[in-house]
Amino acid sequence: MTVANVWAIGIDLGGTKIEVARVDAEGNLRQRLRRPTDAKRGAAAVKAEVVKAVKSLQQSVDSPPAGVGVGVAGQVDRQQGMVRFAPNLGWHDEPLKDYLGRALGLPVVVTNDVRAATLGEWLYGAGQGCDDLICLFVGTGIGGGVVAGGRILSGCSNSAGELGHITVDLRGPSCHCGNRGCLEALAGGWAIARHAQEAISADPSAGASLSKLAGDKGEAVTAKIVGQAAQIGDPLALRIMEEAVQALVAGAASLVNAFNPCRLILGGGVIEGLPQLVDRIARGVRQRALTVSREPLEILPARLGNNAGVIGAATLAIHSFMGKRD
Amino acid sequence: MTVANVWAIGIDLGGTKIEVARVDAEGNLRQRLRRPTDAKRGAAAVKAEVVKAVKSLQQSVDSPPAGVGVGVAGQVDRQQGMVRFAPNLGWHDEPLKDYLGRALGLPVVVTNDVRAATLGEWLYGAGQGCDDLICLFVGTGIGGGVVAGGRILSGCSNSAGELGHITVDLRGPSCHCGNRGCLEALAGGWAIARHAQEAISADPSAGASLSKLAGDKGEAVTAKIVGQAAQIGDPLALRIMEEAVQALVAGAASLVNAFNPCRLILGGGVIEGLPQLVDRIARGVRQRALTVSREPLEILPARLGNNAGVIGAATLAIHSFMGKRD
Repeated sequence: MTVANVWAIGIDLGGTKIEVARVDAEGNLRQRLRRPTDAKRGAAAVKAEVVKAVKSLQQSVDSPPAGVGVGVAGQVDRQQGMVRFAPNLGWHDEPLKDYLGRALGLPVVVTNDVRAATLGEWLYGAGQGCDDLICLFVGTGIGGGVVAGGRILSGCSNSAGELGHITVDLRGPSCHCGNRGCLEALAGGWAIARHAQEAISADPSAGASLSKLAGDKGEAVTAKIVGQAAQIGDPLALRIMEEAVQALVAGAASLVNAFNPCRLILGGGVIEGLPQLVDRIARGVRQRALTVSREPLEILPARLGNNAGVIGAATLAIHSFMGKRD
Repeated sequence: MTVANVWAIGIDLGGTKIEVARVDAEGNLRQRLRRPTDAKRGAAAVKAEVVKAVKSLQQSVDSPPAGVGVGVAGQVDRQQGMVRFAPNLGWHDEPLKDYLGRALGLPVVVTNDVRAATLGEWLYGAGQGCDDLICLFVGTGIGGGVVAGGRILSGCSNSAGELGHITVDLRGPSCHCGNRGCLEALAGGWAIARHAQEAISADPSAGASLSKLAGDKGEAVTAKIVGQAAQIGDPLALRIMEEAVQALVAGAASLVNAFNPCRLILGGGVIEGLPQLVDRIARGVRQRALTVSREPLEILPARLGNNAGVIGAATLAIHSFMGKRD
């Protein structure tokens, strides 16, 4: 088989959707299927849906894939290919690798979804050619991945890179994780929405135009709506976004000082919705980080968007089963 | 030459003292000289003092050393062996490796002092046998080193591990680095002293017993005195130490979530002076860090104390010039 024929299946398995893609050995996404994740029907139904999507993709190609890579929104034991805990799927100790391997007759590698997206951005996106970088994904939650000295950090129990859970305000608001003042609790999509909902509930007149965008239902305000309201100059939305930006600047400066990356790559839904945030954060980090850490640093937007996960997962499979680095 | 004969010179070069030691290939400190750093007399005088101390150590041994390792309190270009900036020495772009190499006729390797101490603790102290760990040194300032996957992280410009400059309170007090709310600005020795001095100056009666310990000179209050006053129950000192502990807990939890180490090793003068802080911080981290990150984690005190720097620097020389890993 020549390299031109090499391809793999990449799967991005989250709480709301399953993406399954055919990706070649140059990181090009050739074909993709997207399905809603029907987590309520249980793990068996979700896994069966994944198998169906993979088989459907396989039909369109003559050559067999090098293997299957899966990025799961949860904590993964990569050696065993076991999903230890995936809160949005409701999974505990799910032996995903064994199941898919048997059902598909293909080699399977399972990793965390953010780790997979970091691999994608590193090798085929904004991180190309760089051996020391951080990917910070700001969506509903905040996660990240760190490449140091040409390797993705995995840590003692494969959970390095929980960058949304660094404390930036030690007396700050409570976080879903049980701690308080986490970066995610100030700047994640859920936190931006919560902040707006609380402000509207405390003073409905302050959030008039925000509420209007949400159909006059305060509880329907999302981070996306806050971002839209900020762009048309709504004062409450502007204040909430400014606080999120200050938290992102503090968090990014912390990461830059601790890891000394050459590049800080910003992605995720909040950044994609408000791309001007990249420059705002970059200006703030230049003011707050140590000179020695900020001098070599580039701060730039992620390039692969939603596709980073499937591209990274498929690439991990190609590297794992074709003898290349991961 | 057998391994039993292998030894190296380790040097710990700081703003107040120069330590020069003979260290064997098992990390044992065999002999040590300590000199005050007379930084005011300029770089040439300090370097001459280092050379004199090394030569004096060499006289007591028949076999030549494998080389010389230097840990400098500053920013180092390790490939060139150049000290880029060492604020406490007043050095800028000092070619230390070239100078010592010529003056001593020995191979020389130069690194950052905290990096050297991390290497010492990792290989011969509290980090033995562990491939993923963080050393956090809490002294006048706060610094650290990170071992990930069996390698010390160096980063893009050799400044990874500035762990005292992660933000834990984004609206917190100003830091020497120009940022605000850094871990060091809340829990470093200089910050503890500043905090006490400001409280006494605002309300002299509140700090009566603290002032007394400092000979009734508010400006003479140091972190050590605050620690002593806390141990005899002084309310102001207890409050100040409690705030430092909360900052250390928040910072340590951040690092544990970001790096997922197997061990967090706590050292430095503030920890050595108040060893009960290790348990306090461990309890706090167990409450605040993510379950997945804290489960595999051990938190323990550094074991080599002040000697970590010279042992690490000498070990770096042995590994650099005898063909072992660094």
